[in-house]
Amino acid sequence: MSTDLVPVEAHLADVLAAVRPMIPVQLGLEEAEGGVLTEDAAALCPLPPFDNSAMDGYAVRASDVAAAAVGAPVVLPVAGQVPAGDTRTLTLAPGTSARIMTGALLPAGADAVVPVEWTDGGTERVAISQPAPVGHAIRLSGDDVAEGDVMVAAGTPLGPAQIGLLAAGGHELVRVRPRPLAAVVATGDELTDPGSPLKPGRIWDSNSYMLAAAVRQAGGRARRHRVKDDLVTVVTALEELSASADLLITSGGVSMGGEHDAVKAALTGYADVTFRKVAMQPGMPQGFGVFGPDRTPVFTLPGNPVSTFVSFQLFVRPVLQALQGLPPVPLPTRQAILAGAVRSPEGRRSFLRGVLDAEAGRVVPLIGQASHQLGVLARANALIVVTEQTVRMEEGEQVDVVSLP
Amino acid sequence: MSTDLVPVEAHLADVLAAVRPMIPVQLGLEEAEGGVLTEDAAALCPLPPFDNSAMDGYAVRASDVAAAAVGAPVVLPVAGQVPAGDTRTLTLAPGTSARIMTGALLPAGADAVVPVEWTDGGTERVAISQPAPVGHAIRLSGDDVAEGDVMVAAGTPLGPAQIGLLAAGGHELVRVRPRPLAAVVATGDELTDPGSPLKPGRIWDSNSYMLAAAVRQAGGRARRHRVKDDLVTVVTALEELSASADLLITSGGVSMGGEHDAVKAALTGYADVTFRKVAMQPGMPQGFGVFGPDRTPVFTLPGNPVSTFVSFQLFVRPVLQALQGLPPVPLPTRQAILAGAVRSPEGRRSFLRGVLDAEAGRVVPLIGQASHQLGVLARANALIVVTEQTVRMEEGEQVDVVSLP
Repeated sequence: MSTDLVPVEAHLADVLAAVRPMIPVQLGLEEAEGGVLTEDAAALCPLPPFDNSAMDGYAVRASDVAAAAVGAPVVLPVAGQVPAGDTRTLTLAPGTSARIMTGALLPAGADAVVPVEWTDGGTERVAISQPAPVGHAIRLSGDDVAEGDVMVAAGTPLGPAQIGLLAAGGHELVRVRPRPLAAVVATGDELTDPGSPLKPGRIWDSNSYMLAAAVRQAGGRARRHRVKDDLVTVVTALEELSASADLLITSGGVSMGGEHDAVKAALTGYADVTFRKVAMQPGMPQGFGVFGPDRTPVFTLPGNPVSTFVSFQLFVRPVLQALQGLPPVPLPTRQAILAGAVRSPEGRRSFLRGVLDAEAGRVVPLIGQASHQLGVLARANALIVVTEQTVRMEEGEQVDVVSLP
Repeated sequence: MSTDLVPVEAHLADVLAAVRPMIPVQLGLEEAEGGVLTEDAAALCPLPPFDNSAMDGYAVRASDVAAAAVGAPVVLPVAGQVPAGDTRTLTLAPGTSARIMTGALLPAGADAVVPVEWTDGGTERVAISQPAPVGHAIRLSGDDVAEGDVMVAAGTPLGPAQIGLLAAGGHELVRVRPRPLAAVVATGDELTDPGSPLKPGRIWDSNSYMLAAAVRQAGGRARRHRVKDDLVTVVTALEELSASADLLITSGGVSMGGEHDAVKAALTGYADVTFRKVAMQPGMPQGFGVFGPDRTPVFTLPGNPVSTFVSFQLFVRPVLQALQGLPPVPLPTRQAILAGAVRSPEGRRSFLRGVLDAEAGRVVPLIGQASHQLGVLARANALIVVTEQTVRMEEGEQVDVVSLP
């Protein structure tokens, strides 16, 4: 049976090969956070935009204060005040000073700022007891970024510093591949909303909540949907959602033998989706393809919650990055010592739930490794990776461990 | 002068000592993502809620199929179908089978499920060619979580697996300390909205965008506000915002000598805020305290964008965690080899902008280390830490490096 299983890496490669980066859109800066810039953003003015004071003090001509000393201060009349934001074009006459605040426009003629700490803080006249060399406490226009220079290059993910810089350079709107919007679709007539009474045979829907949270944790946006397990309903819902979402994620409805598996039936008839068995546990039944006129990528994840979660981390997370045109970065992997024996089916790579003690370099495999045991998953901080060739590992052996986000 | 500077660690300790964890609120599961649970959440039903099939197949009595073999299948009548979500209470008569789907309620009397792959898939009668032992492919009620057991303990941050588990256990609403809401207040009459024309003496506001993005990147929520540099306006705005926000963050308006520094003036008169010089560069002038009847924490960060950014990472980020009752986790620090010489003022710890090559273990100090040089910050991925005692380090020396998020 293991001969018809697709290796994990091959499935990931196929999935990534089918994904095209999203079409860029123009967004306001706050909406663009976490997006990836798609065209170079140049400074619309030099940064700083004008010569300005780096400190609170007095704008002077340096030559006027060259002789200042603690015992023998230079006294200058204070010709005016320049607060930050003052838009007047002032000129400093020789032999005078102007009170100036941090960030305020340097008056024409001034070539140094004397920090207030070197003075008596006078308002009419100021006694200056230390010379300020030319350029002292002055930030020159363009000494950070010249006008027209590229501030943030195409392809850069927009974090706080980049967003701040784009604002400083005058950009209200930027063109980005934004955080991808995933439509998370839970199917299954057995699903009931948490908070509603539960009939025997029914379960509370958890996958749509878990997947939406996982998308957001991975930097995407998500909307939850629940759809009846019926061919026409599923097709109609996916058609509607594919028009607005960047990615469709279903869970459930794809098991191997069920005529009740509406997702599989729907996508087999109406989309370009491959269903296959991947050589892994949990998460063997996987489906991926594109749907609708926009060729929206669609994942059909298995319905068992642990299978869904592991599939998300292995396959969906990299696709969220690829949709933004970023190279996919796998979750951090390290080695650790097994604190207990583990088993794994031959020919399939196991991702067992464990608790990693990063400092000690030890990982405890949890009790309860069935793919429906979400309670156990919620206590794990790592996945223990047991290779396809291995069916058993003993306490004390070294093993690969994937840290969960 | 360095004698009156407060060490970085002492400032952080004072700041954290003044923060009380937020008052818990009850939220829907999606809103609660990223929050910290404040009371144990018990399962409202066992998980799984009922004995159910782990596979698509046939529910049987194991004793009826004990003799099945490939050459000599056991043939049983198929008495019915049990899809997932079926709420009927069925009983399996001895000598019969029921077609059953993954997740469907096991009929009374059945004690094993024969996978469809071991059968001819019959609908009226099914030929079974392999015996299924008692319990085969059955998930017993409660084998993940027993009813009433604590699924997620108080104090746990709610990631995707915890959110999924809370949903599975029936919780629509949970009590959490949610992601803190920060009101980011930019002050300064020099500020103009990006996208508006810029007069000489004015700059485009960048700090409010940068800080709001930094709060969100650190797991909080943020709203941007811009306030005129005027005592009454600032006090009124802070009073209003402190009623709804969990944290106030101002930038600008706190330099040492300015009568135009409305933030400092406002908070000196109306709040319990300490202004001090911290032994660091950039970011020396710091203010922290509490404001208003709710004693809302308030940071007054310096106005220079690099100072603001570094202050955020060192002081505000840990406070966001403390507000949720979490132990503050500093940004990851490692050692690297300096790829160029750096300078640092005596008595102050420098946080220089650099580009860390994590694999090579080298860090390049960037050109342009003034605290207004946001363009340089936006190209950095790390802060190079030069201790208070050190004024110069040479290429090739080992240095502490903080990775930026």
